[in-house]
Amino acid sequence: MGNKKFSRLPGHIGVIPDGNRRWALINGMQKQDGYHKGLDPGLMLYEMCLELGIPELTFYGFTQDNTKRPPVQVKAFQNACTEAVNMLSNRDASLLVVGDHSSPFFPPELVEYTTRKTFGRGLMRINFLVNYGWKWDLRRIFDQGGNVTGKRGDVLKQVASSDVSRIDLIIRWGGRRRLSGFLPVQTIYSDIYVVDDLWPDFRPGHFYEALEWYQVQDVTLGG
Amino acid sequence: MGNKKFSRLPGHIGVIPDGNRRWALINGMQKQDGYHKGLDPGLMLYEMCLELGIPELTFYGFTQDNTKRPPVQVKAFQNACTEAVNMLSNRDASLLVVGDHSSPFFPPELVEYTTRKTFGRGLMRINFLVNYGWKWDLRRIFDQGGNVTGKRGDVLKQVASSDVSRIDLIIRWGGRRRLSGFLPVQTIYSDIYVVDDLWPDFRPGHFYEALEWYQVQDVTLGG
Repeated sequence: MGNKKFSRLPGHIGVIPDGNRRWALINGMQKQDGYHKGLDPGLMLYEMCLELGIPELTFYGFTQDNTKRPPVQVKAFQNACTEAVNMLSNRDASLLVVGDHSSPFFPPELVEYTTRKTFGRGLMRINFLVNYGWKWDLRRIFDQGGNVTGKRGDVLKQVASSDVSRIDLIIRWGGRRRLSGFLPVQTIYSDIYVVDDLWPDFRPGHFYEALEWYQVQDVTLGG
Repeated sequence: MGNKKFSRLPGHIGVIPDGNRRWALINGMQKQDGYHKGLDPGLMLYEMCLELGIPELTFYGFTQDNTKRPPVQVKAFQNACTEAVNMLSNRDASLLVVGDHSSPFFPPELVEYTTRKTFGRGLMRINFLVNYGWKWDLRRIFDQGGNVTGKRGDVLKQVASSDVSRIDLIIRWGGRRRLSGFLPVQTIYSDIYVVDDLWPDFRPGHFYEALEWYQVQDVTLGG
């Protein structure tokens, strides 16, 4: 895998790891049993990005919308996210958890990561969305408007997720062709690649195919 | 075409009519000559939506990002948008133009449409984005935050494009898999269908294929 060459790589990749519940049902399990199966793929993807020198990686963990699901599922994805962040915290990475931590749905163990923490050589910026909500994110713009000293300038600097940079490439597993509230400001110009396979069926080939597709897209930023 | 049956239709379709300049070059014309070729497809699409009873249709006309292009191109897409709105104003439709009309890039003839105008039986809501900018749209949230009587509630009601409803299905012509700043709040949960053909090569089959795909997508709104 170290031999792969790309003419142009994304500076920031967003990952929507969808399809855990569908995978569980297909494999004769309960829906909530699918989330744990997403941990190994996440770690594999991190390793592949590190090897390629991708500077920033953002995982769509769970959202405030998702917390309306049955409690047994909520507990399962909370645990999987907590475990994922703990796994990544022992690597060379600068880690940030983004989400509404004033809510009981936010895992208390992850509060310490809501300001960016650097581990090892901090080689890669990794952002993990946990109890994230697009309304929660955008509402910060409104709150800052109430501050008379606030600046009208850059919207990207005014969202709650302002420490997450613009995303170049989104890879969504599980076949759905939508953003589902994933960082609306940072994904404005993102190229979106959809993998039909479910996230627990992750293969390195999915990732390389996405990068091969990405390298031949033009970048216009709307111009 | 009146015989097409769908089990589920979108309530609001967003159209990204991309590829006019590429079409012009392929057909031996200057880039700016492509925009005029987008008028007939737009009218055809309107007729098809009317026949199916689609309640709302939004066209991505041009953006503030686009106005950085060479003046001859800017003039061409300004003219094409003005002509498109004039064509639709003689139909059964309730028409709204959304964009920054405080700018010299906004065609003066269209200012009257920045409050919704109803023609004939007003059978369909049509929105046309003209000199639209995602930052311009979101910045209104910030401005309303400065108003101490403002409500923190629904972000959708606070954007400059608040009279445009949530979009169910986006159809993008021209092969690019991105949103390019298209109504970030209304497209949060949209299903995105990409047609590889360029917009001036529009065929009714593109539209029906998008609707056939859409009817088998599940709608979760992030839940």
